[in-house]
Amino acid sequence: MAKAAIMGYGTVGSGVYEIIKNNAEKLKKNANGEPIETKYILDIRDFPDHKEKHLFTKDFNDILNDSEVSVVAEVMGGLHPAYEFTKSLLESGKSVVTSNKELVATYGTELLALAREKNVNYFFEASVGGGIPIIRPMHQCLTANNIIRIAGILNGTTNYILNQMIKSGQTFDAALKDAQAKGFAERNPAADIEGHDACRKIAILTSLASGLTVDYNDIETKGITDITLDDVNYAAQMDAVIKLIGFAEFQEDGKIYSIVSPMVVKNDSPLSGVDGVMNAIMVTGDCVGNVMFYGAGAGKLPTASAVVADVVDAVKHIERSKKIMWVEPKENIMANSDSKKFAYFIRTTDNAENIRGIFGKCEFVDNIVSGESAFVTEPMSQSDAEEKSGKLKDVVSMIKVLD
Amino acid sequence: MAKAAIMGYGTVGSGVYEIIKNNAEKLKKNANGEPIETKYILDIRDFPDHKEKHLFTKDFNDILNDSEVSVVAEVMGGLHPAYEFTKSLLESGKSVVTSNKELVATYGTELLALAREKNVNYFFEASVGGGIPIIRPMHQCLTANNIIRIAGILNGTTNYILNQMIKSGQTFDAALKDAQAKGFAERNPAADIEGHDACRKIAILTSLASGLTVDYNDIETKGITDITLDDVNYAAQMDAVIKLIGFAEFQEDGKIYSIVSPMVVKNDSPLSGVDGVMNAIMVTGDCVGNVMFYGAGAGKLPTASAVVADVVDAVKHIERSKKIMWVEPKENIMANSDSKKFAYFIRTTDNAENIRGIFGKCEFVDNIVSGESAFVTEPMSQSDAEEKSGKLKDVVSMIKVLD
Repeated sequence: MAKAAIMGYGTVGSGVYEIIKNNAEKLKKNANGEPIETKYILDIRDFPDHKEKHLFTKDFNDILNDSEVSVVAEVMGGLHPAYEFTKSLLESGKSVVTSNKELVATYGTELLALAREKNVNYFFEASVGGGIPIIRPMHQCLTANNIIRIAGILNGTTNYILNQMIKSGQTFDAALKDAQAKGFAERNPAADIEGHDACRKIAILTSLASGLTVDYNDIETKGITDITLDDVNYAAQMDAVIKLIGFAEFQEDGKIYSIVSPMVVKNDSPLSGVDGVMNAIMVTGDCVGNVMFYGAGAGKLPTASAVVADVVDAVKHIERSKKIMWVEPKENIMANSDSKKFAYFIRTTDNAENIRGIFGKCEFVDNIVSGESAFVTEPMSQSDAEEKSGKLKDVVSMIKVLD
Repeated sequence: MAKAAIMGYGTVGSGVYEIIKNNAEKLKKNANGEPIETKYILDIRDFPDHKEKHLFTKDFNDILNDSEVSVVAEVMGGLHPAYEFTKSLLESGKSVVTSNKELVATYGTELLALAREKNVNYFFEASVGGGIPIIRPMHQCLTANNIIRIAGILNGTTNYILNQMIKSGQTFDAALKDAQAKGFAERNPAADIEGHDACRKIAILTSLASGLTVDYNDIETKGITDITLDDVNYAAQMDAVIKLIGFAEFQEDGKIYSIVSPMVVKNDSPLSGVDGVMNAIMVTGDCVGNVMFYGAGAGKLPTASAVVADVVDAVKHIERSKKIMWVEPKENIMANSDSKKFAYFIRTTDNAENIRGIFGKCEFVDNIVSGESAFVTEPMSQSDAEEKSGKLKDVVSMIKVLD
């Protein structure tokens, strides 16, 4: 019998508890016959009506000091005390699995090294893409590939908002209110709509793909707050949609270009059809080409399903570290922001003649707002695009086009 | 240094050789520092101009009797002698990895049991979906889920043909010729266009998901040879496309319903956007909901990339069986073909009044062929649909609608 503990009894934590209980037979079979049981649930709140209220504790040391507990699901979120707890648990020889993207993106390097040193595991499948299998497939199934590129819809809240704008013609503000009413956006939605959540996730994927720590502070991050219904309608006219994309490209010189930004995504890309709160990650390998992983990027049971899969894997690998890790790079590995060229979709009050004079070759889009010109540039560097657009009379929007 | 052998130097085999050679650094890193090298290539043909012609042998015993060889990639295809070779290798304590769907679908139960008995591995990631990670993600990442359903576009040839019909208005015959000219279809395309290839693959996925042997002979299989341009155009009018779907549903009574059939797929399903030779598999778990895996389902390097990932995993698990397997069921597990209800898209020369009289509630589609009526029924059993449609004056087409 493997004993597990759950730290944090919120949405995901209660899902982890339920799956371990309800799918016990399935888990036992998949853990090579070893039954798995929850022995503790750590939460500062009281749950007096819970059927198994004896499982609850407010004292972390109950878990830390119980030698029977071999794996702990950290689903409390936030950096502290999640960091201190995880560190203590790994040091004491327990495996930890987590859905905490902030913690993995911030302290992953250290915690993964510590897990390896202690011959235990620190798994984080649920930290990116919720229930979507992405961490293991990238690490194991694409292991023969040099990863060239990652482009993902990594945040369900922003995808829902953009989707409402595209499909229902809601303004950004209306779509945000709608998302909040449905529980898809938090009351303070900044972390989502300003791209910070997606940034943590692309940092984790990029670290995993490169084997080197990518500091999320080094990733230029732009959210969707400036996207208007007109932008969305222009995109539709271009047979495209606007999506918030977490993007990384692994360049031949070993440098990594990474950005979080709204992008115009052509409808022939499988990413364009990812609707509602769904997430999808397109990974390009030098052998396999494009593969895409699609599913629920958040939500109680989808996310818990990934956490519990990690619990099962940890149980199967007691005292055997799986060596998923990345290390601090010896030098700066982040590429210059001008090293990747994008085409840009630009709206301006300037006229076609001036636009052509400044940008040379470009493709005009039938304008849907009077007094405007809209066009797509040739691929160019960011500073080139900024310099040129600075010469236009007035720039209404300027959005990267995913190639 | 781990020594590998490759059996069969066709498209996939040469890709395996190239990846092991060209991505050696990457593989070594991912195999926990163990370098991997090809020691033998088995093929009955001569390759006198090959750079490493000393690797080639025509004698299987060279591989079997070399104790240095720990893992063998069987990419020769066909049942014999692939079966005998694989069996001998596993018996002698070598791990085998394969892209051979026919072999896995036919002898998988026995070979997986043998691998387990000998404490080695028999991996088959490349047998379904080519380069798409699907076997491991289903086995490991969705391990907390009871799998409810699998619906996949599992054959690139048929998807290419249907796509040409949809996008370029080619007839079936023209699209098939086009596919043959481009190398996407074989000269004898029966295995693809009649659904047998997809049938082997859904049998493997269904066995994996259930843990029980599913005999592909028990899966009703219908190909795309009857699909006409008119059918495709009707589907477009219904905001849908026609796809060849490998389908399995795991029923609450433990029975499995499985079928390969062309289906009308609504455009709001992510499967509808899977174009060209690409494959995609949608898996529904009781916790995670829908997840989809998308990518190149065939081709030299994509398929080889999955084979080599298996080689790496086998090297990491020398003398440690990973216990992926399924066993013969004690009783018939296949559900009655009437236990799953589908809506049917039907074209007939009969009139609306008769149709309503026979089918009751149904949804008419604007007809695009004069003298025809086209409609979609309510969900009903297959025999019910057949019995009712038998009462119509003349049935032009009858295609299941994916729900």
